[in-house]
Amino acid sequence: MTGTKPQHAPQIHFPVVDDVLQVGGIPLTRLAQRVGRTPFFAVDRALCTARVASLRAVLPPQVALHYSIKANPMPALVQHMAGLVDGLDVASGAELRTALDTGKDPARISFAGPAKLETELSQAIAAGACLNVESGHELASIARIGDATGITPRVALRINPAFELKSSGMKMGGGAKPFGIDAELAPALLGQVASLGLDFQGFHIFSGSQSLRLDAILEAQSHSIELAMRLAGDSPLAVRHVNIGGGLGIPYFPGEQRIDPAPMGEHLAAWLPRLAAALPQARLALEMGRYLVGEAGIYVTRVIDRKVSRGEVFLVLDGGMHHHLAASGNLGQVIRKNYPVVVGNRINARGDAPDSGPASATGPLCTPLDILAERMPLAHARIGDLVVVFQSGAYGASASPAMFLGHPPALEVLV
Amino acid sequence: MTGTKPQHAPQIHFPVVDDVLQVGGIPLTRLAQRVGRTPFFAVDRALCTARVASLRAVLPPQVALHYSIKANPMPALVQHMAGLVDGLDVASGAELRTALDTGKDPARISFAGPAKLETELSQAIAAGACLNVESGHELASIARIGDATGITPRVALRINPAFELKSSGMKMGGGAKPFGIDAELAPALLGQVASLGLDFQGFHIFSGSQSLRLDAILEAQSHSIELAMRLAGDSPLAVRHVNIGGGLGIPYFPGEQRIDPAPMGEHLAAWLPRLAAALPQARLALEMGRYLVGEAGIYVTRVIDRKVSRGEVFLVLDGGMHHHLAASGNLGQVIRKNYPVVVGNRINARGDAPDSGPASATGPLCTPLDILAERMPLAHARIGDLVVVFQSGAYGASASPAMFLGHPPALEVLV
Repeated sequence: MTGTKPQHAPQIHFPVVDDVLQVGGIPLTRLAQRVGRTPFFAVDRALCTARVASLRAVLPPQVALHYSIKANPMPALVQHMAGLVDGLDVASGAELRTALDTGKDPARISFAGPAKLETELSQAIAAGACLNVESGHELASIARIGDATGITPRVALRINPAFELKSSGMKMGGGAKPFGIDAELAPALLGQVASLGLDFQGFHIFSGSQSLRLDAILEAQSHSIELAMRLAGDSPLAVRHVNIGGGLGIPYFPGEQRIDPAPMGEHLAAWLPRLAAALPQARLALEMGRYLVGEAGIYVTRVIDRKVSRGEVFLVLDGGMHHHLAASGNLGQVIRKNYPVVVGNRINARGDAPDSGPASATGPLCTPLDILAERMPLAHARIGDLVVVFQSGAYGASASPAMFLGHPPALEVLV
Repeated sequence: MTGTKPQHAPQIHFPVVDDVLQVGGIPLTRLAQRVGRTPFFAVDRALCTARVASLRAVLPPQVALHYSIKANPMPALVQHMAGLVDGLDVASGAELRTALDTGKDPARISFAGPAKLETELSQAIAAGACLNVESGHELASIARIGDATGITPRVALRINPAFELKSSGMKMGGGAKPFGIDAELAPALLGQVASLGLDFQGFHIFSGSQSLRLDAILEAQSHSIELAMRLAGDSPLAVRHVNIGGGLGIPYFPGEQRIDPAPMGEHLAAWLPRLAAALPQARLALEMGRYLVGEAGIYVTRVIDRKVSRGEVFLVLDGGMHHHLAASGNLGQVIRKNYPVVVGNRINARGDAPDSGPASATGPLCTPLDILAERMPLAHARIGDLVVVFQSGAYGASASPAMFLGHPPALEVLV
C-alpha cells in the first residue's frame, strides 16, 4: 500500500553506521552528548562545502555565487560560507553585522529589504556594503545620509519584474508587490541615481524561490537577464553586477525530487556571450540560501514520552514547532505535510515490536499545531531516543517562535 | 459592494479622540513616544480588569476562574491577572517561574504539558504547584522525584476525553491525542495515584479552544462535568478540583461575532447542584487565556515606506510576521484572512486622497508571507503613521519568530 504512495526523496547526505545516523563522521548519539542537551540543530560543514563545489562544477567560472544569510544566520556557518562564496546577502542590520564579522570585503555584501530603517541605511553606507534600493523614498534617504556622512553610497536597484518564477514556493515578482522597484519605473530611478552621484552597481532581480522545476527556473533566468539588458539600455551608468537570485528548491515532502543543476550551467553559459556583448563590465551572480545549506542540516530532538492513545502511537518530544515552525507545517504551507523524519539512533529497526506501525511525533507545546510527524512509518522508538528531522539546515531556528510557551531555545552546532 | 461582504466585528474597546486611537486614556501617538520606538504590543490593563469582571458578573460565585499564562506571559500582565483570577496555569518551567514571581499561592498554580522535563517536574514539586499528569510514565517520574525529595507531589489527571469541542479553532480532545490520559485509562491511573500516596487534586479536561459557538461550548462543558463525575466514581480519592478549560474565542476575521457569556453562567449554575451532590469537595474551574486578554491588546507598527506598485498601495511597515505570526496568517490558519487593522493616528480619514482605496500592509521581511493586511480599506497613510492590529493581546510576541531575519524584537507594554 505504501509502495503506491508518494515517498520522500532518499536521504543520501548522512550515512548510517550500525543503525545510527552519522553527522560529520560522528555517531548521532555521541554528537548529542557533545552538544550537551537536546533539542539542537546540527549543520554538517562538509556537506555545505560539497554543495557549493557541485554547483561551481556545473556553473561557468564567470558566474558569481552568493550566500543569502537569512536562510541560516548562525555565525559559525556564515563564517564557513564566506570562505566558499563570492558574496554575502543580508536582510537586516543584524545580518549585516554577522556578515562583516566574517571579514568578507564589504563591497561583496549586499543588503536587500523593503523597510530598511535609517539606522540600517547608515550602517550599510558606513560599512561600504551595497544597498539594494527598494523605492524612490529609500533612494532619497540613502542620498541624504551619504551627503551627511561624506561617504558615497554603493547602490543597486532591486527590480520587481513583471514576470514570476512559475511553480515556486515563494513568489517574489510579477504583478503588484512590495518588493523592489517596478521594472517600468526603473528608468526614472536610474536617472536619479546618476544625478545624485551614487556609486551604481547594477540590478537585483528576484522572481521567486523554492522551485523544483528546472525549466521554470531557467525561463525566469532568461527573463531576468533580458530585463537587465533592457534596463541597462536606459541606464546612464555602467552596470557592473546583475544578481538574478536563485530559485532552486530542495525536496521536503513526499513525491518531491532533487533537481539536477547541470542544465542550468549550460543555460547560463549560453547567455554569457550575449550578456558580455551588451554589458561588458557586468558580472552575473546567483544568490542562494536554502539550496546551499538546507540539506546539510538536521534537527534533533529527544523522546520524552511514548504514548498509545486509542490505538495510535505518539512520540512526545522535547522539541517541536517553537524550534522548527516550517516542519510543523505553519510557515507558508496550506496543507500540512511531513518533512522526512527518522529515529536517528534506530534507523532501520522497523516493524519488530508488537505495537509497531505508523507513529506521530509531537512536541512539548499544549497545542495540536505542535507536530513534527503525522502517522509516519517510524522505527519503534523508546523514551530517550533521538528523533531527527532532515532538510533542516535552512529556515529552522531563526524562523521559529522560540519563546512560545517558554521552553528553552534550540542549540545550534556546526559539525 | 463592501456592504455585502462580511465585516470585522466592531472595535468597541479602544476609543477614538480627534481621529487618534486611545490606549488607557493616552493618545496612540503619545504612547508611541512614551514606549520609545516601534513596533510594540500594548495591553490595556483596565480592559483586562473589565473582561474578568464581566465574566464574574455572569458566573456563579462558586466557579473559579484561572488565567492560562501561555496566552500572554508578559510578567507585568501576569502580575495584574494574578490579582484578578483564582489560579494561574502554566505550560513550562519558565512560565512557572513567572507565575511564582507574582506571589500567587503555589497551590493555585497548575502545570500542564505533554513533555515535561525532569527538571520541570522537580521545579513544580519543590514549588508546591499542581502537576497535571499527562501519562503513566510521567506519573511514575513524579512519584520518584517526590520520594527523592521528601515532598508529596500535588497532582491532577489531565484527561483526553472521547468527545471534542465542536467548531473550535484548536481541538484538544476527541480520538487519539498526545494530550492527557485517555478517559478509559484513567481508572487504572487513579489507583496508582492512591497507592503512590500522592496529593490528588482532581481532573483537568480540555476539549478545545477559540470557539465562537456558545452552544458547542456549553455542550462540551456538560460532557466534561459528566465525565468528571463518572471518573470520580472510579476514584479512591476525593476530587477537590475540576478544571474544564475555557474554549471561548474572540472574533478575529470578517463575519465573526463576539459571544455573550451570560447563558454560560446559567448553564453552569444549573450544573452546580448535581456536581455538589456527587463531588461535595470539588470546586469547578474555568481556565482561559485568549478570552481574558486577547481583545485588550494591540500591535503597533510604523509606516516606513508607502509604495504604489502596478496600481496597488503597499504600506511597508517596521513590523510584521516576526512579531505577530498569527496576524500574518501563519499560525494554524489554512486560508489567510485579515485581522482588524487601522491606521491608528488617522482612523477616519478615508477616501480623501487621489490614490485612496484598498491598501496592503506588509512587513520588513523579504518574504511574501510577511503581510499584516491584504487589500483592506484603510485611511490614506503617510510615512511615519502608525498601523494598528487589533485583537493582539494573546498569542502575539511570544508566539512569533522574533529572530527571523534579525530585526529587533517587539517591545511590550502594559498601559
